[in-house]
This record gives sequence, C-alpha cells and structure tokens, in this order.
Amino acid sequence: MADSSNTNVVWHSGLPHEERWRLLGCRGGTVWFTGLSAAGKSTIASALERELVRRGVHAFRLDGDNVRHGLNRNLGFSREDRDENIRRIGEVARLFAESGCVAITAFISPYRADRRRARRIHEQAGLEFFEVFVNTPLEVCERRDPKGMYRRARAGEITDFTGVDDPYEPPEEPKLMLNTAELTVEQCVERCIDMLAEAGMIRRGEV
Amino acid sequence: MADSSNTNVVWHSGLPHEERWRLLGCRGGTVWFTGLSAAGKSTIASALERELVRRGVHAFRLDGDNVRHGLNRNLGFSREDRDENIRRIGEVARLFAESGCVAITAFISPYRADRRRARRIHEQAGLEFFEVFVNTPLEVCERRDPKGMYRRARAGEITDFTGVDDPYEPPEEPKLMLNTAELTVEQCVERCIDMLAEAGMIRRGEV
Repeated sequence: MADSSNTNVVWHSGLPHEERWRLLGCRGGTVWFTGLSAAGKSTIASALERELVRRGVHAFRLDGDNVRHGLNRNLGFSREDRDENIRRIGEVARLFAESGCVAITAFISPYRADRRRARRIHEQAGLEFFEVFVNTPLEVCERRDPKGMYRRARAGEITDFTGVDDPYEPPEEPKLMLNTAELTVEQCVERCIDMLAEAGMIRRGEV
Repeated sequence: MADSSNTNVVWHSGLPHEERWRLLGCRGGTVWFTGLSAAGKSTIASALERELVRRGVHAFRLDGDNVRHGLNRNLGFSREDRDENIRRIGEVARLFAESGCVAITAFISPYRADRRRARRIHEQAGLEFFEVFVNTPLEVCERRDPKGMYRRARAGEITDFTGVDDPYEPPEEPKLMLNTAELTVEQCVERCIDMLAEAGMIRRGEV
C-alpha cells in the first residue's frame, strides 16, 4: 500500500468474532435441525427464523430451497453427494455463525458422522452448535407424505430413502427434541427460543 | 403439525428479504473485489469489514483464509476447480446478502464469465452487487510478491498463474477502481464507504 505497508499485519489480521459480536451487539451460533423427511424441520426452521428476526436477531435459514438450487446445485443424491451436501452446509453455517448470525439449518442429515463433523468445525472455531432432533415418528411422517416420497420409496420407485431403505441415525445427545405430532409449531419455536436464551444467545423476553 | 397444518403455507413461505431487512434495519449486498495477486484485495476487504462493523453494519468477509480451508477445502487449482471455487463463493455471498449482511469477497476471480455469473445470481434475487477492481499494476504486485508466487511463476515452478501465464480479464464496468500503488488503505476504504452510502446501503456518516 502507498504509505501503510507497516500496518498490513494489523489490517489483515481480521476481526476475531468476540470483537465483532461486541461491536454488533449479537452472538452467532448454529441451530441444526435433524429428522426424517416430513418431520417438520423446515416448518419449524422457518417459523423460528421469522420469530428471531421479529425480535431483531440476525437469523438465517439454510434449507433445500436456498441451498439445493444454489450452492449445491451440482450435487445429486449418491451417498458421496449427500455427504458433500451436508459438509458444505456445515461450513456455510459456520461462516454465518462467525458473522454473528444465528444460522438455522433444516436438512434430514441422517448420519451421525456428518452431524459430528458439522459440530466439530463449530466447536473448533469457538462457536455454539445446537443439535435439535425433530423426532416425529416415522408413521406420522409417512402419513403426512406431502411430496409423495414415502409412497414412492415403498413402491421401490426411489431408493436409499431415509427411514424406508436407508437408516436414520438418531442423535445421541440432542440439545432438544421436538415431536411435531404432539407439539404445535408455536410450541416448538418457543422451546427453541428458550434453548437459545438459556445459552445466552439471545436475551429472554427480547422483543 | 399438531394443530396448525392449515398455516403451513404461511409458515413455510420464508421471509422475503425486504421484510427481513426492514425488521433488522439493514440492507444486504455484495462487494466483490477482483484483481491480481498482491494487488491489495484482502487488505482492503479486511479494513472495510472492520470499518463497517465498527459502524454497526453487519459485514462479513469471504477470502482465502476462511473459504479455502473450509467450504472449498476439497478444491484444487485446475481450471475446473477454480471455476467451482468462484461459483461457490458467489452463491455464499448471495446468501449473506440475502440475510441482510454486506458480504465482502476478496479473490483474484480473473475471468469475466465467473464474475458475471456471480453478479447474475445476485441480480436475479434483487440483490446489489458491487464489482470493485483493485487495479494495482502488475509490476507493483510483482515487486511486492509477499508469498514469492510471482517469482516461482516466472521461474516456471508454478503454472497458470494469473498475470504471468494465465490471463486476467479486467472488469468492463467496475463500480469502483482502486490502485493501491496510489491510494492508502484508508483512502480505499473511504471510497468503498462512499460507494455504499451513495447506493443507500449504509447511511452516510453512520457511526
């Protein structure tokens, strides 16, 4: 630079997230929803995002709508591509968390190893990672079947479908479990808000 | 959901970014720095990020430090992988912009087609995209050569190095040009801030 080459190191060193968060008055982290297809992940994620934003909390949802058609448009549904799908989502969530945002992800993410990796990259960066298990029973999900996917999987028209002919590995220690056969969306959101408030991510009663 | 299945559509429809930005009092967009290696992109990006955050503006920098070792760790330096590198960065910047953040990217991004694609996905989503050409002359960049890359490229130890044996395609209509052989980091940041203020992305004089 013209006259400040000696300050390059300082300029370049980036902004540690503690300092960023202090300046912005926020705290970043990731709420990771996992569960079967049609369990209610996207619905809860959407409602949670809306409620947080209404309270003035920067929150952003990553789900099939904005990821599969964008960042991950070049991935299919092979085991390898599904792993890479979840890997990228974990990395992007980490970036959002670092930026001071509450990242909210809503993907089946059926394998423990994939979720563990997402958690690890957060923890390595000193970022909170909340695994929320939407544990709506298979029979309820299958009855809902909004896109007819379970029907097609049972008919053998699609294979490797989670819960039918591909395993779902439940979280061992989820931070929260939400069964949408028993709870309303509003109740689910309330529990997520309580979880975030207890962890000091947002202020309780923040409007 | 237990008792609100009739509201699924509403819950699920997501948060249009205008409504999100209004609730959060912010505006998202992407500042895309492009230029030769050692032109000063990362230094300016870092300083701009810091200045915006100091003013209370959610801003987040994507650069080699946090992308090459994370999201894009599985990419090499073939033409195909470099395209994919820039493609993913464009998609992630778009997500940040949508969230209400000022995304700041600092990558050589030498090809017009790649930058055009990044711009297109922003414009399609109704998001601002500011292309900033850090047009420090090659000879200055080469003299700086902080990582000895130009020397190695000239010696033939590395190939396809932008500006040496691979082309840099300059932007045709950059929003701003910054030659760090003539401007200090502070001056570069000031011009970026003016550009953002003029576009209504931040308030002028916002502290």
